[in-house]
Amino acid sequence: MTIGIGLLGLGTVGAGVAAILASPEGRHPLVAELELKRVAVRDLSRPRPLNLAPELLSTCAEAVIDDPAVDIVVEVMGGLEPARSLILRAIAAGKPVVTANKAVIARYGEEIAAAAAAQGVYVLIEAAVGGGIPIIEPLKQSLGGNRIQRVSGIINGTTNYILSRMADEGAAYADVLADAQRLGYAEADPAADVQGGDAADKIAILAGLAYGGPVPRAGIASEGIDRLDARDVAYAAQLGFVVKLVATAERLGAGTEAPGEPVQLDVRVHPTLLPKQHPLAGVHGVNNAILVEGDPVGQVMFYGPGAGAGPTASAVVADILNIAGIRQVGGAEAGLDPLLAASSWRRCELVDGSTSRHRNYVRLHTRDQAGVIGRIGTCFGAAGVSIQSIVQFEAREGDGNTDQSGEGPSQEDPSAGPCAEIVVITHEVQESHFRQALAAIENLSEVTTVAACLRTL
Amino acid sequence: MTIGIGLLGLGTVGAGVAAILASPEGRHPLVAELELKRVAVRDLSRPRPLNLAPELLSTCAEAVIDDPAVDIVVEVMGGLEPARSLILRAIAAGKPVVTANKAVIARYGEEIAAAAAAQGVYVLIEAAVGGGIPIIEPLKQSLGGNRIQRVSGIINGTTNYILSRMADEGAAYADVLADAQRLGYAEADPAADVQGGDAADKIAILAGLAYGGPVPRAGIASEGIDRLDARDVAYAAQLGFVVKLVATAERLGAGTEAPGEPVQLDVRVHPTLLPKQHPLAGVHGVNNAILVEGDPVGQVMFYGPGAGAGPTASAVVADILNIAGIRQVGGAEAGLDPLLAASSWRRCELVDGSTSRHRNYVRLHTRDQAGVIGRIGTCFGAAGVSIQSIVQFEAREGDGNTDQSGEGPSQEDPSAGPCAEIVVITHEVQESHFRQALAAIENLSEVTTVAACLRTL
Repeated sequence: MTIGIGLLGLGTVGAGVAAILASPEGRHPLVAELELKRVAVRDLSRPRPLNLAPELLSTCAEAVIDDPAVDIVVEVMGGLEPARSLILRAIAAGKPVVTANKAVIARYGEEIAAAAAAQGVYVLIEAAVGGGIPIIEPLKQSLGGNRIQRVSGIINGTTNYILSRMADEGAAYADVLADAQRLGYAEADPAADVQGGDAADKIAILAGLAYGGPVPRAGIASEGIDRLDARDVAYAAQLGFVVKLVATAERLGAGTEAPGEPVQLDVRVHPTLLPKQHPLAGVHGVNNAILVEGDPVGQVMFYGPGAGAGPTASAVVADILNIAGIRQVGGAEAGLDPLLAASSWRRCELVDGSTSRHRNYVRLHTRDQAGVIGRIGTCFGAAGVSIQSIVQFEAREGDGNTDQSGEGPSQEDPSAGPCAEIVVITHEVQESHFRQALAAIENLSEVTTVAACLRTL
Repeated sequence: MTIGIGLLGLGTVGAGVAAILASPEGRHPLVAELELKRVAVRDLSRPRPLNLAPELLSTCAEAVIDDPAVDIVVEVMGGLEPARSLILRAIAAGKPVVTANKAVIARYGEEIAAAAAAQGVYVLIEAAVGGGIPIIEPLKQSLGGNRIQRVSGIINGTTNYILSRMADEGAAYADVLADAQRLGYAEADPAADVQGGDAADKIAILAGLAYGGPVPRAGIASEGIDRLDARDVAYAAQLGFVVKLVATAERLGAGTEAPGEPVQLDVRVHPTLLPKQHPLAGVHGVNNAILVEGDPVGQVMFYGPGAGAGPTASAVVADILNIAGIRQVGGAEAGLDPLLAASSWRRCELVDGSTSRHRNYVRLHTRDQAGVIGRIGTCFGAAGVSIQSIVQFEAREGDGNTDQSGEGPSQEDPSAGPCAEIVVITHEVQESHFRQALAAIENLSEVTTVAACLRTL
């Protein structure tokens, strides 16, 4: 039984999918039943690495979707529009959709899921998060017996590449970014990666699946690595931590909400200090990893290449195969498997971050005077913030106000006298208490600047 | 729609499954549709941690299977018989089976799969390998677009616990084993774990799924950790390696075999030196991890708790949910999803290990004479074995024949004079060439013993 595939987009991922379909030998035998019927491209004249019959190509994506020979629509063009409209068109035509488009799913996932449920078709998204790592399928199909406590991950390869090199080489952010752009690991406009937006898209998707209901993308606080100082990466290393851009979705409460009750989630993206023995701490370069914590499973982690034509195509083909496989169960008129369809089953509410609890790393510039550590400690204590360590790093003349970029010499007035750099790591405390302590510390006459403030696991 | 569950066994895993079914709040809503109908136990009078209605319990497993209220049979009793016969009885009754029984599946998987295919029922085994780690489902449902090159894993928690402590504490195998037994991490009879049989069962299962056909369990060469010397763990660490019990299934050839052609596999279990930056090297204690390498996905890894009531119950419930979910597609009369059913699609043949290629670690006891390193190097060179490093460790008077257990002082005659300990790490070479070099080295007059020989990744 041949299953017709219509491909929207023939960039790196689309070409990777076409390459798998064109060489089924040695893969699961269902691959041989998939046949590429039509491909929508922007420019017919562009040379293609693959030897595709010219009559397969079309500049009209709608025609690809509407072609009766196309049974499954694969959207790998990216971007919000026309991708969203085309996905909805395929659903309206009763055709299942496979997409790698995290931006569309993070923003329009609810609209798309509702349309898919109404039409009784699958929209599968394994490639949208974590590249080739099987994470969407396991969340949907292998962890349903659990109450999920937390999903956290390194889910942006560009920033992990940059952070890995900053840690290994002691290099400054801007220098590594420029190099990453030269090497093709970072886009010419790196904003979506380095400011955390891409990771926020992805954690919205993961949280929606882990907790059973759509997570409002707009409500996710995200902070990138673009203001991270190489000094904090170095100090973190000396204290036994690595700095990673971690996206987290954490459940508040016991997780035993009655059916119909919403679940409260704290979802965020920010640079985070991880103890060196933490499972995510060993994820280097462009690799991704997602750690899922649940009751009763404990901690399970999924690791692998977070991007690239081959890994992403592997994930896209996995979704196509799942649709092809389940068609053999009950034919085209069958019902949906609620696990594979990932039907929403409860409401997710994002909480205000100030009520959540974290450990913190703070770097302070202070005047190098006796008693300053005591006064800082007193401020934390007064706010009920318990401290794990407080360390004074090398004091340098007039180095009290190094700018955040870590570039170039300090601009501070050297007349300010000798300066000290003090790093505090707190125990887990409520965010509002921590902020209260920090406000008091900023008002201390000895404290010049709160130079950096990072969350710590 | 309630789905009736019949449980065979109420040990730690069975009790864990019953606990999940008894508290569905906050889990996937399908869990609430599962109802525990009958439980087979050996002893009705034994006190149970769970508050189960006494009428659910029965000492007759056949009665549980045959009960018309039971839709899915869950076998968590372990052992070969009567587990195998009971699984076959459930299949014959047309009831899908979920089992955590790696020993039965590794030995009778082919018989069970044939019976299941003939009856059109699923036999799901997520809990049989890797405890709570989703690995069976991803292999079946998320990587089918790939040509799998290699599956390797740390899939026995007991041995990984022992090896982790040997590495951390420099302790001897026998001492750590005794302690692990006291702490409940090792069985009173540890043979299946420490001699590699349990890992061989599991790699047989993983390889069967990854390569699409049954792997003959009896043909898997396995070597345990019971003869591992603490000294080799320490030397490995000094050279940048960790020693792990790794189970591997590697494909020979290009992986583009024509349909109907068998695939050639090298499947084995043995202590292995892993470079410290290898993804499996960071897997500590009772955790497990499975690394899957394929084209085009690259390397993906699955990590988590390899045993325990909660994790294993999570995997069992995942399988139950998959069966419950797919019943909604086409009802009881529907066909099987070939991915979920993991239908066999080619023949796997095990190759003779002497034709495969590896890196090797060798520890030699030699007389401490000038020129010995040169003569050893010459033997390797003559056999075409290229060496990465050759290092002489501390030479000690009369310490030329330390026994393998690493316990107690050497028994060697001190009159033999000063001795040296030389460790060689080779590049990747064909096993037969390596054996040829080793035979020549054993014949050198300066070489007292080949004290240890380990594979290296």
